[in-house]
Amino acid sequence: MKNYLRHDEWSIIEEGFHPEHNRISESVFSIGNGRMGQRANFEEGYGGETLQGSYVAGIYYPDKTRVGWWKNGYPEYFAKVLNAPNWIGLKIDIDGERLDLATCEVSHFRRVLNMKEGILERSFQARLKSGKEVKVHATRFCSIADDEAGAIRYSITLLNTSGVLSITSFIDADVVNQDSNWEERFWREVEAKTKKNQGYVTAETKKTAFQVCTGMKFTIFQNGAETDFTPFHTHRDKYVECSIDLPTKKGVETVVYKYAAVVSSLNHPVDQLMDHCKEVVKNSAKKGFEQMRLEQAAAWARKWEEADIRVDGDVAAQQGIRFNIFQLYQTYTGEDERLNIGPKGFTGEKYGGSTYWDTEAYCIPFYMATADQHVARQLLVYRHKQLQKAIENAEKLGFTGGAALYPMVTMNGEECHNEWEITFEEIHRNGAIAYAIYDYVRYTGDHGYLAEYGLDVLIAISRFWAQRVHFSERKQQYVMHGVTGPNEYENNVNNNWYTNYIAVWCLKYTLESIDFVQQQSAKRWKEIKAATRFDEKTESTKWQDIIKKMHLPQDKALGIYVQHEGFLDKDLLTVADLRPEDRPLNQKWSWDRILRSVFIKQADVLQGLYLFEDQFNEATLRRNFDFYEPRTVHESSLSPCVHAILAAKLGKKEKAYEMYLRTARLDLDDYNNDTEDGCHITSMAGTWMAFVKGFGGQRVYNDMLHFSPYIPENWKGYSFKIRFRGMFIEVVVSQDVVQIINRSKQSAALKVYGKKYTLKAEATLKVAHATR
Amino acid sequence: MKNYLRHDEWSIIEEGFHPEHNRISESVFSIGNGRMGQRANFEEGYGGETLQGSYVAGIYYPDKTRVGWWKNGYPEYFAKVLNAPNWIGLKIDIDGERLDLATCEVSHFRRVLNMKEGILERSFQARLKSGKEVKVHATRFCSIADDEAGAIRYSITLLNTSGVLSITSFIDADVVNQDSNWEERFWREVEAKTKKNQGYVTAETKKTAFQVCTGMKFTIFQNGAETDFTPFHTHRDKYVECSIDLPTKKGVETVVYKYAAVVSSLNHPVDQLMDHCKEVVKNSAKKGFEQMRLEQAAAWARKWEEADIRVDGDVAAQQGIRFNIFQLYQTYTGEDERLNIGPKGFTGEKYGGSTYWDTEAYCIPFYMATADQHVARQLLVYRHKQLQKAIENAEKLGFTGGAALYPMVTMNGEECHNEWEITFEEIHRNGAIAYAIYDYVRYTGDHGYLAEYGLDVLIAISRFWAQRVHFSERKQQYVMHGVTGPNEYENNVNNNWYTNYIAVWCLKYTLESIDFVQQQSAKRWKEIKAATRFDEKTESTKWQDIIKKMHLPQDKALGIYVQHEGFLDKDLLTVADLRPEDRPLNQKWSWDRILRSVFIKQADVLQGLYLFEDQFNEATLRRNFDFYEPRTVHESSLSPCVHAILAAKLGKKEKAYEMYLRTARLDLDDYNNDTEDGCHITSMAGTWMAFVKGFGGQRVYNDMLHFSPYIPENWKGYSFKIRFRGMFIEVVVSQDVVQIINRSKQSAALKVYGKKYTLKAEATLKVAHATR
Repeated sequence: MKNYLRHDEWSIIEEGFHPEHNRISESVFSIGNGRMGQRANFEEGYGGETLQGSYVAGIYYPDKTRVGWWKNGYPEYFAKVLNAPNWIGLKIDIDGERLDLATCEVSHFRRVLNMKEGILERSFQARLKSGKEVKVHATRFCSIADDEAGAIRYSITLLNTSGVLSITSFIDADVVNQDSNWEERFWREVEAKTKKNQGYVTAETKKTAFQVCTGMKFTIFQNGAETDFTPFHTHRDKYVECSIDLPTKKGVETVVYKYAAVVSSLNHPVDQLMDHCKEVVKNSAKKGFEQMRLEQAAAWARKWEEADIRVDGDVAAQQGIRFNIFQLYQTYTGEDERLNIGPKGFTGEKYGGSTYWDTEAYCIPFYMATADQHVARQLLVYRHKQLQKAIENAEKLGFTGGAALYPMVTMNGEECHNEWEITFEEIHRNGAIAYAIYDYVRYTGDHGYLAEYGLDVLIAISRFWAQRVHFSERKQQYVMHGVTGPNEYENNVNNNWYTNYIAVWCLKYTLESIDFVQQQSAKRWKEIKAATRFDEKTESTKWQDIIKKMHLPQDKALGIYVQHEGFLDKDLLTVADLRPEDRPLNQKWSWDRILRSVFIKQADVLQGLYLFEDQFNEATLRRNFDFYEPRTVHESSLSPCVHAILAAKLGKKEKAYEMYLRTARLDLDDYNNDTEDGCHITSMAGTWMAFVKGFGGQRVYNDMLHFSPYIPENWKGYSFKIRFRGMFIEVVVSQDVVQIINRSKQSAALKVYGKKYTLKAEATLKVAHATR
Repeated sequence: MKNYLRHDEWSIIEEGFHPEHNRISESVFSIGNGRMGQRANFEEGYGGETLQGSYVAGIYYPDKTRVGWWKNGYPEYFAKVLNAPNWIGLKIDIDGERLDLATCEVSHFRRVLNMKEGILERSFQARLKSGKEVKVHATRFCSIADDEAGAIRYSITLLNTSGVLSITSFIDADVVNQDSNWEERFWREVEAKTKKNQGYVTAETKKTAFQVCTGMKFTIFQNGAETDFTPFHTHRDKYVECSIDLPTKKGVETVVYKYAAVVSSLNHPVDQLMDHCKEVVKNSAKKGFEQMRLEQAAAWARKWEEADIRVDGDVAAQQGIRFNIFQLYQTYTGEDERLNIGPKGFTGEKYGGSTYWDTEAYCIPFYMATADQHVARQLLVYRHKQLQKAIENAEKLGFTGGAALYPMVTMNGEECHNEWEITFEEIHRNGAIAYAIYDYVRYTGDHGYLAEYGLDVLIAISRFWAQRVHFSERKQQYVMHGVTGPNEYENNVNNNWYTNYIAVWCLKYTLESIDFVQQQSAKRWKEIKAATRFDEKTESTKWQDIIKKMHLPQDKALGIYVQHEGFLDKDLLTVADLRPEDRPLNQKWSWDRILRSVFIKQADVLQGLYLFEDQFNEATLRRNFDFYEPRTVHESSLSPCVHAILAAKLGKKEKAYEMYLRTARLDLDDYNNDTEDGCHITSMAGTWMAFVKGFGGQRVYNDMLHFSPYIPENWKGYSFKIRFRGMFIEVVVSQDVVQIINRSKQSAALKVYGKKYTLKAEATLKVAHATR
């Protein structure tokens, strides 16, 4: 755990340069606009510890890692999030001496991520080896007003000397992925041009043949006046630069404005890419930095208006939740149906691929409640469109008859993960995809979705489960062998309770949905039935039998569900038994030791109790929580939020607060010692849930929105906003009272602490705190 | 299963060219001499399906395959068996047209591996695209008389034309491994020379810096007379060649003799490598091909004298067993204590590394019985020397206090395998290493080995087991979680019966051995105790407790030991339920499907019953055999031999014969559809065991050799020879009688069918067949 960033309500602030944490800062201060994004690398380059990273949504590379021990059924490749051409680069030389913070004395360093406006700023003074001193202030953003544009304002002042300031502005497509084997390059140049103060490179990805044109134009002001210059151009493979030497007086501020554009073949015909890139650059330069910045601030203001969560009296908690919301909207805006939410967003290259079950289990609830309904729907349709690939994926593993196994990780619907214990065995993801349909329909009331898109996905998933189980003669029950549950610190186990439970639930929900669609429209059902070749007699009967006879391991004496068979034979230590030097286990222990231990990476039985809480009584939840929580190390970012919500429900306020802070500040405080690889974007939606469902007690039952808020003791107050079926509700909680404000122009019926209220448009309801 | 090779008692014969099986033939016809070896690639090159492979014992490359999902505790690298410089190469052009069987009409093709003399021959006629016809006869061997030398006689006759015959003889170190990533080259050139009809390349392996000098000299005869020529030299990176154009008359035989040498820095100082290589080449050329060939035949005659097994009346069985013995002695001769027996020998590059548990469980019994006692001892000492590395390996996984985990695969004692379910979990290998010590002492009576080398290995292995188990409060027994047994079609299981059993056995045997050494020499025990810091009180007590309370899963109703917990919950199909198109499972089914199925890759419970057969009654063996055998697919080459021995013991003669043929002809008939990657060398020792222990009923109990032979119905007779404590015994069995011939110069006491006999030197004992 680190603690070097200043707590602030609206900004992330690094005061004083921390080169030892630079890769962490690069992740945390990342900026993006849903279309593109980048780590907070220094414009002028950096010779120290750094991970250079720019990313363009939807652009990936299918990397075939040939390992000696290929398993049958493995995908052909592993999709890599591609490090994309870098447009931020400036080289700054003073009398031929390169500015590089790795070789300077640095003072007055300050890096600020202004989340309110979506701006990254950095200022410092540097004393070069020659003794020359320089002051820099850099400001940069990826525009959400025009998501193909970015801009930099880079100000340099020579403090104790006059001299020749050389400024080189470049576009570099000759970039490499850190995780590439043998330094392999994934881009090749298509075209490159320089002209005056402009430079453009169109590069194409190998194999996938995506084209991206990255361009820039820059202007320079001295003493507030634009300088006229004729730069010197250099062009290497996949790289262009414009250089200029400026005799500069001591104390005079030189300001470089760099306007950049990133346009890709996902959105434009390849033959128009460069022209379009020039157009974007031209428009930006015409508009000017300050105007672009105003538009950026205005666009973010609109987002915050809808999605902000406020905490009074706890700056760390306030900063944490805003950071999570900010990063989520930097990563995915819901504008493009082809995109999804990568686990690292635009903050790092780890975990290739863009789509995990994180989307369904964590992100959809967030986007349902903070964005227009079509955004969540779009995320569901994304999977619907990939159904055929999921069926092919299951066929590769030997399943038949239209059974679907959705991939663990994907870019285009094809599986691109290759660890057998995950790829083939962490199949509960299929359940999460079905659950998201249920959750969406429950939340939005959009029952039409089932007939339109949902049912064929549900049928295909249920078919998978029906083949994946087998009947144990010995147990006289259906069992499911060889799975990996959400707790990835157990592999290839039998009868993981969560997986078995969600499988049975899928079968039930699919049968219910078939009934529902049938009743709504016999015609539509007939179509679906024909298209899916669903055999009502044999398939329904088999499913009913499995529902009736599935083995769901439990321990009567302890009154708990057993994570999987054999779990209770372990040495039943608790996290309190671990030494600090053992943590995090995944960095300190060998894999076999982790597997044999009792320690749980992330909510597993508790994940099921969270998703299906209305199917269990509180005593059951409590017994399971009390057994599993003390054995959970939360080394997955997806874990603490679930525990926070359950703890809140069980009235374990301290635990809920602890878990909330852990999820909210996971990256800010580098809890799991891995933020340097990038931020945990998808789990940030979990943070939002921990807040709204945990503290706010928000639920939907029977088409009605419920709240039962409570407030942590050390907070003065908090508020959050949510959308629900056309309503827009703000919940404002102080230590004294709970206010529900109907911010929509329609009346709103909802329940607070179980009691029903109807609020007129714009009305505020005040209720006293109550237990749930 | 293929069936294109002719059955013959002493040779492997391919009649007619089978390009579709060429990679299989290249494996089967491989030649080697313990120091170097090679696949049966064509001298003149081949444009069709081929895997070019030459290998030098002990020369490896540590290949770090960076995969995204590295596990803690993984080794730094995976040792690759390196494809070494190729010395067989000749390019043959007729009037500028290249001879390549891939582009010719081929007739009269015949490839023969003469196992009696250790010679590879190939003859054919080829009609080139131009219509020109040529006849070739190639003869080649790796000399076991001088294990740094090899020789080729290559005869060419133009059949229907006169023309210019261009002959290019080359040494090529610019070779690549098939399994290398990105076509990476592992060799770099140190030095290369050509002079007249000679060429030499010294190449060094990257990282490991082994140097190998490969050289050649060639002479050419036409019409029986040596031709004088001045070749044209070409030298590229890591490659030299000598070319010559010979105007050649129709019908005239041109014979190329190529003398080659391979010398390595394992055996010579690097600064003398090339000189020594020249020396070897010079001596060979001086000696001449025919003389070298005579020496080769004589050396092989001596080997056969000691190790041959004869079968009368079953050519397929005869060919099979000789092929196995031949390949074993081509791979490992026992001359060099630094070497071991790679699973593919010199026949392919698959399964990097040289030493698996195969050595202890399969090869040591073979070498104990067919070679001088020091050979088996040397194989044990090999592990003794690597004890410190095994301790470090265990430390990497979190074990302490001198516990050792021997690697799954190694070249130098370091683990170099990286599949977690094997590397970390297939720990029964530790048991096999302890068992080999027991087996060696039992066989040889060399009890001194324990005090000298054995005991510290046993203590370190027992320490590992004592830490690897834990006490289950629920079971009130010790359990061992997270293991992979010999049946690798189950991963990460709990309480694998075999592993638990051999662990307990190790603890018992170590305690007995401590007692034994203590009684023999209190002083020596004191030394060992001090060196190992053995704590008699706590360690012995703990071990005794584990011995008493280990969980050994069994099923009372079925009367069997249970392979591992949960096994009986599977769908208990048998192999008879499989469709032919499902086989082999490991090529047809996805990995998860294999894991979930009941099917057993190789003897697992039965492996334990085989090793410890004297600890179980026959009824127990039978029940377990009858349960597990029908569920075993034998997709490991190590499996059928164990089943053959048990079947023989249980009087299941048909099954024993079936299993014997399967192990003996595994590669000849390509049973598992993988011979193209190389032959299954280590399992060939299992074939020998299946014969001698299965049909011959050979055992050692209480320092005495036992036989209880029976003869398969369709055989006329068989014989085998074994060494035992200075004795040299031949067992000759016909349908009528069993003869035991004492071929040593000392009297021999032994038991036949349980009855003790003492044979004078050179005496023959005749006994009637009996049941065991």
